[in-house]
Amino acid sequence: MDFAAAARRVRPLAWKTPILPLEVPGAARVAAKLESLQHTGSFKVRGATNCMLKLTPAERGAGVVAASSGNHGRAVAEVARRLEAAATICVPDWVDPSKLRGIRASGASVVLAGPSYDEAEERAALLASSRGMTLVHPFDDLDVIEGQGTIGFEIVEQFEGVEEVIVPLSGGGLAAGIGLAVQDRGVRVVAVSARRASVMVRSLAEGRPVQLPDEETLASALSGGIGLDNRFTHDVCGRVISEHVVVTEREVRAAVRRAFHEYRLVVEGGGAVGLAALWSGRYLPGGPAAVVVSGGNLDLGRLAELVA
Amino acid sequence: MDFAAAARRVRPLAWKTPILPLEVPGAARVAAKLESLQHTGSFKVRGATNCMLKLTPAERGAGVVAASSGNHGRAVAEVARRLEAAATICVPDWVDPSKLRGIRASGASVVLAGPSYDEAEERAALLASSRGMTLVHPFDDLDVIEGQGTIGFEIVEQFEGVEEVIVPLSGGGLAAGIGLAVQDRGVRVVAVSARRASVMVRSLAEGRPVQLPDEETLASALSGGIGLDNRFTHDVCGRVISEHVVVTEREVRAAVRRAFHEYRLVVEGGGAVGLAALWSGRYLPGGPAAVVVSGGNLDLGRLAELVA
Repeated sequence: MDFAAAARRVRPLAWKTPILPLEVPGAARVAAKLESLQHTGSFKVRGATNCMLKLTPAERGAGVVAASSGNHGRAVAEVARRLEAAATICVPDWVDPSKLRGIRASGASVVLAGPSYDEAEERAALLASSRGMTLVHPFDDLDVIEGQGTIGFEIVEQFEGVEEVIVPLSGGGLAAGIGLAVQDRGVRVVAVSARRASVMVRSLAEGRPVQLPDEETLASALSGGIGLDNRFTHDVCGRVISEHVVVTEREVRAAVRRAFHEYRLVVEGGGAVGLAALWSGRYLPGGPAAVVVSGGNLDLGRLAELVA
Repeated sequence: MDFAAAARRVRPLAWKTPILPLEVPGAARVAAKLESLQHTGSFKVRGATNCMLKLTPAERGAGVVAASSGNHGRAVAEVARRLEAAATICVPDWVDPSKLRGIRASGASVVLAGPSYDEAEERAALLASSRGMTLVHPFDDLDVIEGQGTIGFEIVEQFEGVEEVIVPLSGGGLAAGIGLAVQDRGVRVVAVSARRASVMVRSLAEGRPVQLPDEETLASALSGGIGLDNRFTHDVCGRVISEHVVVTEREVRAAVRRAFHEYRLVVEGGGAVGLAALWSGRYLPGGPAAVVVSGGNLDLGRLAELVA
């Protein structure tokens, strides 16, 4: 993979996001990589862009489809709009209202697929095969992984002396991409999962992809399985992640609140798990560390509930 | 003034804030300089740091005092804490609750001075003379102006080809500093005032500092006079500002709302006047332009009211 080339390729649809100093008691230099300020509100636009730029004119004409808990869908919808391709986004019924608005604002069709993420996935697969649309996978795709890896490339460039990257973990596209991008720079990858969305951690522990029922979590962006037929992210994550941390709902909520009050950052639960690991004291970096704040799509009402 | 040296001097108390791409219909490249993500939540920490680093040990021992609608006080309180100096901050009664919390969290004493900013100013001057404390002026001081100018220095470095900087205008420290920092780079300065806090615009029009009664405004950070005995900012602003724009309350509110919904940015009214000028169409840049988003200290309840 060529992350430098990918970083050039995804501009200007995916922005080079800022790094902000962060106070973590007991730790050396820590900085947040703010994908919450990314175009479309999450890192997902990087992978979606890197993947969809390769569509042929015929594929663009037939349109794209994606399953998503919200952020990937919003990214795919926006990239499709820019490429003048039709997009259909299949989401679970519990999708965050601000993400749904974002998807619709980009002109995509929305399918509310049912109470679980798996149903959204099935509907997307069905639409892809029955209508000849291209399925843009949220994580288990090499172009998507390369796109997300551009974050690692940027961190190394923006943060001199960085020794660790702390990354939210769900389907593994983000951690895999960043891990591959920084592995020959001697940077450690620490993956953080929400306890109620920890299927990848469990799968890595068991040495094969497993399935777990969806649980309700503040980190809803991290919900959903990794696929029993996982092709790439399970293996890559097993190789590139040095350490795992799992955080609770309480810790996620506290991190969202602190990010708002102390840093004026709007961070969704799933985007805040790295901050939660640091601020709860569950993980203390051994050297200069960048923590990826992966998304900020949060309804105002939800934000008010969380930070009040 | 040496803005490069000042930029080095104020680190790490004042951060190098990020630049974020912004969509402005009809305009070429526009980027926001996010002082809302600055340490203490506004650009004020730059000037306060640049000024207070010059305190002698005796002056530190005697403590500092400042009058402020909130942001300058929060900055002075935090810098004083780092320098282990006592700080007393005089604020008007209508100070934003989040700013008050921030001031107190830094360990400063707070004086609620009365219903107007002028009363806060009088109290601060009295404390300075009666107790031998150093008064840290919010704008009309050469070190403060140089500190705020570091924003201009950074913009030129971060935004290649920038031709204009759009800057909120109140007491004029920010506009004066940025203007002086960018003047030999051929960058135009466009100053934006809130209609209900436009004493500097009026003073420039009349060719001398005038006084106006405080009006209630969403841009409360821009309230307060420029001083009938203004020494520096009135003259410097007269020389460095190429164009003035004045925005309404409605336009400020719409900008705060749009910044939150589209960019996940928490911006206070006074910090949003530049965005208001652009998004309302009152000002259309003629070339690549940076807009300074000067502060983000906004109570959650207030934010909810504004963006709902």
